[in-house]
Amino acid sequence: MDIIEYLKTNAELIDTALNKYIPPEDEYPDIIHRAMRYSVFNGGKRIRPILSLAAYETVGCKKEAAPLADGSPLAKGAHLAEDTLRAACAIELIHAYSLVHDDLPALDNDDLRRGRPSCHKKYGEAMAILAGDALLTHAFYLISKGKNPEQNNRISEDISYAASTFGMIGGQVVDILSENKQPDAPVLQYIHTHKTGALICASVKIGCILGGGTEKELAVMTKYGELIGLAFQIKDDILEVEGGKGKIKNSDMEKLKLTYLSVYGIKESKYQVSQLIHKAINLLDEFGGSNTPLYKIAEFIGNREY
Amino acid sequence: MDIIEYLKTNAELIDTALNKYIPPEDEYPDIIHRAMRYSVFNGGKRIRPILSLAAYETVGCKKEAAPLADGSPLAKGAHLAEDTLRAACAIELIHAYSLVHDDLPALDNDDLRRGRPSCHKKYGEAMAILAGDALLTHAFYLISKGKNPEQNNRISEDISYAASTFGMIGGQVVDILSENKQPDAPVLQYIHTHKTGALICASVKIGCILGGGTEKELAVMTKYGELIGLAFQIKDDILEVEGGKGKIKNSDMEKLKLTYLSVYGIKESKYQVSQLIHKAINLLDEFGGSNTPLYKIAEFIGNREY
Repeated sequence: MDIIEYLKTNAELIDTALNKYIPPEDEYPDIIHRAMRYSVFNGGKRIRPILSLAAYETVGCKKEAAPLADGSPLAKGAHLAEDTLRAACAIELIHAYSLVHDDLPALDNDDLRRGRPSCHKKYGEAMAILAGDALLTHAFYLISKGKNPEQNNRISEDISYAASTFGMIGGQVVDILSENKQPDAPVLQYIHTHKTGALICASVKIGCILGGGTEKELAVMTKYGELIGLAFQIKDDILEVEGGKGKIKNSDMEKLKLTYLSVYGIKESKYQVSQLIHKAINLLDEFGGSNTPLYKIAEFIGNREY
Repeated sequence: MDIIEYLKTNAELIDTALNKYIPPEDEYPDIIHRAMRYSVFNGGKRIRPILSLAAYETVGCKKEAAPLADGSPLAKGAHLAEDTLRAACAIELIHAYSLVHDDLPALDNDDLRRGRPSCHKKYGEAMAILAGDALLTHAFYLISKGKNPEQNNRISEDISYAASTFGMIGGQVVDILSENKQPDAPVLQYIHTHKTGALICASVKIGCILGGGTEKELAVMTKYGELIGLAFQIKDDILEVEGGKGKIKNSDMEKLKLTYLSVYGIKESKYQVSQLIHKAINLLDEFGGSNTPLYKIAEFIGNREY
């Protein structure tokens, strides 16, 4: 399978779904819906929701002992496809809200996001705060609309925990507290596993749950999610310095944020990424091995240049 | 029944539950949990969660054709009591988050909340933004922990809608847009029914749902919730000017916010409150009439001096 093609096809699938699930721009009060859409449709890679689709596909396909159909993750198990897409979009909304609030002057104070004015530069601070709030709120509304209320509830529990002070917000808090402090390896580990890792891991988990994965499969997927979540963030730190495509944002360097590079240096950071990816793909033997989306996505995370 | 005693007893019940459901102050990262608790335990009246308990009690007691036990709303239907208390607390967390974000410099810029420094004055803007986010997120986590997943899902749907851009956030957005504009009755109506009314109405609804109310009962309760929700906000506008107890906040006047008084004047505003309360209590005949908590709470909202 061609991973670049797979990511592109699925990002389009997610974008189409997001467009359907987010209130239209002309819905009253329109400014907030415009701000929400502006913050979501910003050329993001959609890596989190794609992980949900890939985990869903992997678990489901294994059950039916059928080969994976490249680029069509939702061809099988169509009755669950809509719910999976909806939950995957909810994850993306939470990711988008976290970026809108992160960019605010009181936090990272970033004027640009992917080369465009950040939400508060475009719509003002008040609307950016409310747009973030609205995206977070809408994520839980979306989840509640799935066909299976029991499953919705489980997903709501997993996602709210991953986004909480024991997950993403906790990582963000410690990140702020560590600014301009001496590099500290355990604190850094906490930030990376929580700020980015928790939601990436939840993305994999909910795909597995919706795909009907067993508790044992879920445990493996969770481990996989933790490994690639951490690798993703270390890779982000590396790209921040090596200036990968689209990385205009540099507030992290200005504020002397704690990064993998400041603690371990670039060589060791790169080695750690490769080790994490290696461990993650080793978990996938029972799920079809090297020609599966989760395998290729892990490799992509390790190798990505943007 | 003595409404003041009823409100006091139930506010204590809610406070005890909130204390149990919000992460402790010393839980890492502790600053965010301190900020969350600071924003929730601020001497609030707990009118929203009390409405949930009262609606739950009313519907449940009617079913059992038993008299209401003053001051002990959870004496009956004990198996549902915990879930109701949890959902009621979730509503209060959402109310608390909305106040934290409302007080921010980019929004109402209020330094004081109930006579104490507002969250951002105490913990800084970054932590206040994140504490608001965390309270909202935690509300949905709490809801997911109820014993009946199907019911949790319905409550999550209702609350997320009430708090969304079609409810509370929508009201807040239009409130901001209307600052320093000419008074406009339809816009004012939208702001009041959405910014405050939607969540108050949802509080009544979820109590009714958890109490096992029929769809017909739910329709009556929803109407009741809409009426008292609007009355509550008009009364707030009146107290803002007449300077009721604890109303130190006056940013609304400084910014020339759209209020009932600016559109209708004080006499007509007071008349409208009494009419709304009158309509609300007229709906309660089939629920036990004038000696029930919902009746007394409606009266209290109309008469309150703080």
